Amino acid sequence: MPVGTAGTVKAVAQDVLETLGAEIILGNTYHLYLRPGHEAIRRMGGLHRFISWPRAMLTDSGGFQVFSLSQLRKVTDEGVRFRSHLDGSSHFFTPEHSMDVQIALGADICMAFDECTEYPADRNRAEESLRLTMAWARRSLDHFRAHRHEVPWYGQTDRVPQVPGTWGPGSEPSTQSLFGIIQGGMYTDLRRQSAERLMEMDFDGYAIGGLSVGEPRELTLEMIAEVLPLLPADKPRYVMGVGYPDEIEQYARMGVDMMDCVLPTRAARHGLLFTSEGRLNIKSKRYAEDQGPADPACRCMVCRRYSRAYLRHLMQSGEALSSMLNTIHNLAYYLGIMERVRMSLLPESV
Amino acid sequence: MPVGTAGTVKAVAQDVLETLGAEIILGNTYHLYLRPGHEAIRRMGGLHRFISWPRAMLTDSGGFQVFSLSQLRKVTDEGVRFRSHLDGSSHFFTPEHSMDVQIALGADICMAFDECTEYPADRNRAEESLRLTMAWARRSLDHFRAHRHEVPWYGQTDRVPQVPGTWGPGSEPSTQSLFGIIQGGMYTDLRRQSAERLMEMDFDGYAIGGLSVGEPRELTLEMIAEVLPLLPADKPRYVMGVGYPDEIEQYARMGVDMMDCVLPTRAARHGLLFTSEGRLNIKSKRYAEDQGPADPACRCMVCRRYSRAYLRHLMQSGEALSSMLNTIHNLAYYLGIMERVRMSLLPESV
Repeated sequence: MPVGTAGTVKAVAQDVLETLGAEIILGNTYHLYLRPGHEAIRRMGGLHRFISWPRAMLTDSGGFQVFSLSQLRKVTDEGVRFRSHLDGSSHFFTPEHSMDVQIALGADICMAFDECTEYPADRNRAEESLRLTMAWARRSLDHFRAHRHEVPWYGQTDRVPQVPGTWGPGSEPSTQSLFGIIQGGMYTDLRRQSAERLMEMDFDGYAIGGLSVGEPRELTLEMIAEVLPLLPADKPRYVMGVGYPDEIEQYARMGVDMMDCVLPTRAARHGLLFTSEGRLNIKSKRYAEDQGPADPACRCMVCRRYSRAYLRHLMQSGEALSSMLNTIHNLAYYLGIMERVRMSLLPESV
Repeated sequence: MPVGTAGTVKAVAQDVLETLGAEIILGNTYHLYLRPGHEAIRRMGGLHRFISWPRAMLTDSGGFQVFSLSQLRKVTDEGVRFRSHLDGSSHFFTPEHSMDVQIALGADICMAFDECTEYPADRNRAEESLRLTMAWARRSLDHFRAHRHEVPWYGQTDRVPQVPGTWGPGSEPSTQSLFGIIQGGMYTDLRRQSAERLMEMDFDGYAIGGLSVGEPRELTLEMIAEVLPLLPADKPRYVMGVGYPDEIEQYARMGVDMMDCVLPTRAARHGLLFTSEGRLNIKSKRYAEDQGPADPACRCMVCRRYSRAYLRHLMQSGEALSSMLNTIHNLAYYLGIMERVRMSLLPESV
């Protein structure tokens, strides 16, 4: 899932995302809550309509950004008080408030409010953090179930985005889904415990959070391998915040259905391109007169039209087109990986 | 002509320019000479191939930017010594060097090296400046005629961009055209004199320069009205550096064939949109929840898909998509004006 923090996948227009085959994008609750505000978005019919994106969307809970971007945060059992990174104003997020904001935004998939356990965290800290996340998951779910009918597009039968299998019984009017988030630090027994307790609550899908926070990759893999087999196969399984191209392929082949990461878009803006030949730093002088495409094996609209030399020139000149073209290529590369994995997983008779 | 300073119309990809119907774009010789360098572009087959633009291009002479952007410039009859605005390095531009650079870049249309007379300029100053520009026009033309066969794509018969009527006799191999630039400050007799002397030299087209430099609009109009009837109807007539939407319509109806201006693209990046209802500052709070298109009468890809509220949000959030969408709309609006003027000038029987 390309990340569209503030209601835009940075430097890419929606029609290009459609052409690239992006079926779902992410919005960040924290950013959209602060600007333009969830009530404004609700009044305008929800995020899909506001940004003109007819396909599926997912919003995170705001928790991760509260912990990573805001200042002076204070965590209690009740919730988190923090100051906006934009203007220093004071805000208080609880699981209930995160649900209210996400329901107003109206993405297809909402996420339970959680605390992303930092790395490293000792066992006591991981246990305490998990206790908080599990209590918040319960409160998120209860509040969500009581208010999901308040989504701006509730019951509309003609909505284009349909996330199959995530809307409960077929008789229920169309509304949002809520995923729970598994935490537990790098402790396999805590992770199992977290998964089991969330499954008891019966979420519409399950995410594995608190990974890709600085731990070695073997540990990421170990946590995913531990938890994934526990999760129901008929509900989406989502690993948050990963990863490099080889990682997302590996996890997808293990059975992960959804992943999100700013890496393809953020790296693009810094001139790092992912290609079938490895990573390519387009700023390098070696490409100054290289008339080949960024990736000879790539059929994206950037590789079909522009040379490495031109991409380098745009980057050197600080031109907006640099971010635009680099991002398109990286997203095409990432979406291409997932497309190939999907094809390879089809039954042979199809 | 949308302005593509450094080999890119800022924030718009080439395929979008094609969709918008841009038939010709401008490149700035000064910028491209400094970065990536005209010799590099020559080695890569010229500017069209370097930036992947199959339609027509025009390069200015570099003179205007030398005077407006560079530091410590020193003008002599021979040429101009200046320091790069990028790194302070010292450079010397003469009419001959400007031609060499423009031939290496290989745009379809080159411009003679001129001095853009500042405003206000007293008569002595305007006369002296015109003397220099006329001498440089002669030297530009002589050098261009002696070297135009050195353009990277000389004689290629399959080139797509064809600027009708600007390539001299049909038997000549395809190559570049050179336009002369009329100066003379705000003195009608100097302007006439300038036009007549350039016509004697027989350029492929004629530009009126030194306008839109701070003078009142009536004066701009007076200069154009004075000069335009003198120029041959079978060669392109180009007014440089104009203008607002109503200006370009007015000048086009007077018989001006070509104009260029950074206004639509630069204003877009500052949130100023040109619409059928007048100018619109998209930053304004009044559009915070305005779900209508930027211009209700516009059929561009931005007005068909996005609301004023979303455009405002993108601008407030400093998102790259803001510049991209605003620029697309403004270019669509400008190109739409010219399209309507062209249609209205067709003989009724057509």
